[in-house]
Amino acid sequence: MTEERLQYYQTMLEAKLNSYLPETGPQQADVAAAMRYSLLEGGKRIRPILLLEFCRVCGGNPEKVLPFACAVEMIHTYSLIHDDLPCMDDDNMRRGRPSNHIMFGEASALLAGDALLTMAFEIMSGEEAVSAVGAERAIKAANILAFRAGAAGMIGGQQIDLMSEGRGITLDILRTMDEKKTGALISAACRMGCALAGAGAEKEEAAGRYAWAMGLAFQIVDDILDATGTEEELGKPVHSDAGRDKNTYVSFLGLSEASTEAQRLTKAAVDELDSFGAEATFLKELTEELCTRRK
Amino acid sequence: MTEERLQYYQTMLEAKLNSYLPETGPQQADVAAAMRYSLLEGGKRIRPILLLEFCRVCGGNPEKVLPFACAVEMIHTYSLIHDDLPCMDDDNMRRGRPSNHIMFGEASALLAGDALLTMAFEIMSGEEAVSAVGAERAIKAANILAFRAGAAGMIGGQQIDLMSEGRGITLDILRTMDEKKTGALISAACRMGCALAGAGAEKEEAAGRYAWAMGLAFQIVDDILDATGTEEELGKPVHSDAGRDKNTYVSFLGLSEASTEAQRLTKAAVDELDSFGAEATFLKELTEELCTRRK
Repeated sequence: MTEERLQYYQTMLEAKLNSYLPETGPQQADVAAAMRYSLLEGGKRIRPILLLEFCRVCGGNPEKVLPFACAVEMIHTYSLIHDDLPCMDDDNMRRGRPSNHIMFGEASALLAGDALLTMAFEIMSGEEAVSAVGAERAIKAANILAFRAGAAGMIGGQQIDLMSEGRGITLDILRTMDEKKTGALISAACRMGCALAGAGAEKEEAAGRYAWAMGLAFQIVDDILDATGTEEELGKPVHSDAGRDKNTYVSFLGLSEASTEAQRLTKAAVDELDSFGAEATFLKELTEELCTRRK
Repeated sequence: MTEERLQYYQTMLEAKLNSYLPETGPQQADVAAAMRYSLLEGGKRIRPILLLEFCRVCGGNPEKVLPFACAVEMIHTYSLIHDDLPCMDDDNMRRGRPSNHIMFGEASALLAGDALLTMAFEIMSGEEAVSAVGAERAIKAANILAFRAGAAGMIGGQQIDLMSEGRGITLDILRTMDEKKTGALISAACRMGCALAGAGAEKEEAAGRYAWAMGLAFQIVDDILDATGTEEELGKPVHSDAGRDKNTYVSFLGLSEASTEAQRLTKAAVDELDSFGAEATFLKELTEELCTRRK
């Protein structure tokens, strides 16, 4: 069942994302092509799926809020493009393919990121989104996303990452970094789903607590996979963290304790879903799957 | 009179912009400091002033729409920061001071730009903005801005700029580039002012035509100043266009014809303001001033 619904969501999302960035002409070396390259190929679409599913478990119609789900994925994608740039993490590979700036050059990658970030807000404030859920809910969703994608959230996490690379940081700082860098956007997606369905503040807070635990578990699993997986399995360079002398949950806790911590957080996340009732079964299964994944 | 109202607007804007980015602590080398550096020092604040004034001539209250004016200035500022980066124009100076990335490093400059872009939408979708003008107008204003700041507007202009540097382009392409790169954001500001005041589509279109002519005139004057001014007067390197073999209105038309074209467009812009009645006197004076400026 989990697999079927996942596919249903993924198919919807791919089609919708595709509709926002129509195929460009023969001239591929432009910003639109760079946007397509990173947005339309690869990616698990976890964040938009969480948005759609939280909307559904709160009684909303996922198909109506697709534009918002796409907006979240655009923000996620822009952050990866900018994060891979030479002045940031300087990563040449992403999802088993050359990074955006390797394919299109730094300038186009920079602009493609800027354009995806801007497009996310264009879509959420556009006619389709507003007529689907009304101006009040649409603008609330945009605000949830902007706040958590910004300097207090995702970008704040990038900054901690920048400042801590090559220096000794504590486990606490690592956790704060990941809460912001990864957790904030996951939190935005879950909260937006609730808000778009018109659920009250209580549900939104529960979704936020779920996202916090799930995001951290997800990140710990990421670190574990980086330490134990192969490049072939993951489609990206592995042991990159150790190679950079980067602090991770694995370097702090060791493999075994990191794994226990991931399990504890996964359980905490799943427990938060109880308040969403019987409809939350898919979300629980999805959470277990994501946090026990092997690639 | 022009001077007084300009100062009134500028004072309001500086205070409001400042309130969004409170002074950071002793640790200055972070993204917040980089955001402050570029947002809070220098700049003529033309775009936000146009927004406030178009709002006023359409019967709205400028003080109520300050958050939107600040959002426009944040978008403008982010575009300058990213534009100055080594992978783009590689400019070391801006407004008589070292560029953002020279002061804070490329990574922080990149993130500061991203954060300002995101903050613009956070503010427009935030409680203050929404309660001032209502969700409908707030989200419409955000949409006007997102569309014109994005790939179809400002970023599209940057892309043309990128692709044309060092190659021969035509005057038509130069004009299209400037319509997008400079004109789109000016157009957004003017249109947003009308929309936020609840003016109809007709007024918004007139504001758009004004912005088109004014933006182009402004850009031509910029090119003329780059060719004729001194670094001391302008606070930035001059003859930079010629040094890069960059196509400008001056290189296409010569100084005299470029100047005539600027005057023609300034008149066209001022004429568009007739439809806003007697209240538009300040806008007319401001337009004349901007398009005959000497620095």
